[in-house]
Amino acid sequence: MKLRFVGTGDSAQVPRFGCSCAACERARVLSSHRRGPCCAEVRVDGQRYLLDAGRSDLAASCERERPAAILLTHYHADHVQGLFHLRWGMGEPIPVYGPKDAHGCADLYRHPGVLAFQPGLKPFRALRLEGVEAIPVPLSHSKPTLGYCLDDGGTRLAYLTDTCGLPAETERFLRGWRPDAVVLDATHPAGYAEPRNHNTVPMALEIIERLAPRQAWLTHLSHAVDAELMSVHLSLPPGVALAQDGLECELAWPRPGSVAENMPWRVAMATRDG
Amino acid sequence: MKLRFVGTGDSAQVPRFGCSCAACERARVLSSHRRGPCCAEVRVDGQRYLLDAGRSDLAASCERERPAAILLTHYHADHVQGLFHLRWGMGEPIPVYGPKDAHGCADLYRHPGVLAFQPGLKPFRALRLEGVEAIPVPLSHSKPTLGYCLDDGGTRLAYLTDTCGLPAETERFLRGWRPDAVVLDATHPAGYAEPRNHNTVPMALEIIERLAPRQAWLTHLSHAVDAELMSVHLSLPPGVALAQDGLECELAWPRPGSVAENMPWRVAMATRDG
Repeated sequence: MKLRFVGTGDSAQVPRFGCSCAACERARVLSSHRRGPCCAEVRVDGQRYLLDAGRSDLAASCERERPAAILLTHYHADHVQGLFHLRWGMGEPIPVYGPKDAHGCADLYRHPGVLAFQPGLKPFRALRLEGVEAIPVPLSHSKPTLGYCLDDGGTRLAYLTDTCGLPAETERFLRGWRPDAVVLDATHPAGYAEPRNHNTVPMALEIIERLAPRQAWLTHLSHAVDAELMSVHLSLPPGVALAQDGLECELAWPRPGSVAENMPWRVAMATRDG
Repeated sequence: MKLRFVGTGDSAQVPRFGCSCAACERARVLSSHRRGPCCAEVRVDGQRYLLDAGRSDLAASCERERPAAILLTHYHADHVQGLFHLRWGMGEPIPVYGPKDAHGCADLYRHPGVLAFQPGLKPFRALRLEGVEAIPVPLSHSKPTLGYCLDDGGTRLAYLTDTCGLPAETERFLRGWRPDAVVLDATHPAGYAEPRNHNTVPMALEIIERLAPRQAWLTHLSHAVDAELMSVHLSLPPGVALAQDGLECELAWPRPGSVAENMPWRVAMATRDG
C-alpha cells in the first residue's frame, strides 16, 4: 500500500492569509513548508483511492489518473471543495463514499454531476473495494465524521481526521484491529485552550501511545503547530512524524511468521513536488 | 477604471474534467485558452474591488493586495468557493456585499472569520465605495443574483453574470443608465436547447445590441462555446469580444463635451499571465 499526503494543513492552511508568524512567513518563502487542505491518496494494486477532496487542483489530478473511488471523512468545505468543480466533468461516474450526513455541503447532493454519492456508510461495516477493505470508524467532530481503517491484506492503515480525542467504541475497535500505521489529527499546539473539534499535539501523541502502531504521522496541522515547533524543541516519540504535503510512503512491514519478522521494520519515503 | 478578467469560464471551467472536445484538448496544451471560475477585479483610485470570489488562489492574491471589498453576484459555489479558505485569515475584516440570500453557501455565514458579510443589497440602491459607486441590478438566475453597475465618475461598466436574459426592470434601468462597457453571461453556444439559467451567445448579442455600449465582453463561457468557435466562423459585432482569463482593460473614453469627444473611442488592453 502506498500512501501520499496531498495536503496536511487545517482549514486555514499554511501560510494562513494575513498572518505574519514565523511559520507563515517561512511557508511563503519555502514552498516545502506550505500545507494545503487536508487530504491524501492511497494506491493499492494499481487502484487509486482519494481520502477527502479539498485540494483545488482535484480535476487536473483526476485527469492524470481517474480515482477508483473517493472516501470522504466529512462534508466540511476544506475536505470537499474540490468536488464543486470536478462534478461537472464527463465520463464514468466516480463513486463517492462518506458518512451519513443529511446536508452534505452546499448543493453537492442536488447537483452531483459525474459523482456517484453512495448511501452513508455504517460505522464498523467493512466496505470492500478492489485491492483494499475500508472499515469506517466514527470520529469526534462538529459534523458527522468517519475515519477509515484500510487493509490491503498485508498492511493496516488507520486514517483518522478530523477528530478531538476518539469515541470509546472507535478506540476499542482500533486496539483490537492493531493498525501498522496511524495518521491522526493534531491541529492545535500544546498550549491550545479547550480543544473541541480537533486534537492538540499532546492529545494525538497520547492516542498514538495507546494504539502503539509501528509508524504514525500527525496531520491537519495549523500554522500554530509549525510556529511552536520553530521556537520550542519538541522531540516526537520514535516512529512518530509530522506529515508534509507531497510526502509519499510505501507502507511495507514483514508479515508475522515470515523470515524477515525479526528485522527492523522499514518505511520507504520520498517527498515530491505537487 | 481598470478591469481585469480573472476567470471567464462556467462552473465546469475549460478544460472540463474528462472532456476530449477540441476546445478542452486545446486548453490542456495552451494555458492561454484555459478558463477558470468566473470572476473579475476592478481598480479605481488605488482601490481594488473583487467581483466574485471563486478563484482557488484567492488568499494568495489578497495577500499581495488586500481588496477594499468583495462584491458577490450570488452564492453558487463557483462564485464563492475561494472564501472557504480566505475567511480563516487574519487582519482587518474584508467587507463582502451581495444579494439577499437566506442560505448563502455552506457554512460561510455561520463561520465568516475575517469576512464581514454586509446586509443583502437592495436592487437599484447605490452603494458608495471609495472611488466608485456600485448600483446592484437583479439578474435572472436559479439563485438570488445581482449584476453590478459601476461608475467611477468617468466610466460606466455593467458586470452582468450569471443571467438568462435580463429582468424587464434591469433592462429598463440599463437603457437609461447607458453603460460604456458591458460584461455579459454567454455560457451556451447558439444551438443550446432551452437555456434556463444562462444566456446563449445569440441571446447575449441581442441584449448587447439593445444596450448599445461602446464595448462589450462575453464571459462565463463554456467549453461548448469555445468548441463551436473553433469549428464555425462566427464574426462578433464590432466592439464585442470574448473575455479571456488574465485580460486587463483600461476603460477610458473621452467625456461628453471634451475636445476629444469626436475621436474614436479606445480601449487599452493587455493580456497577462496569472
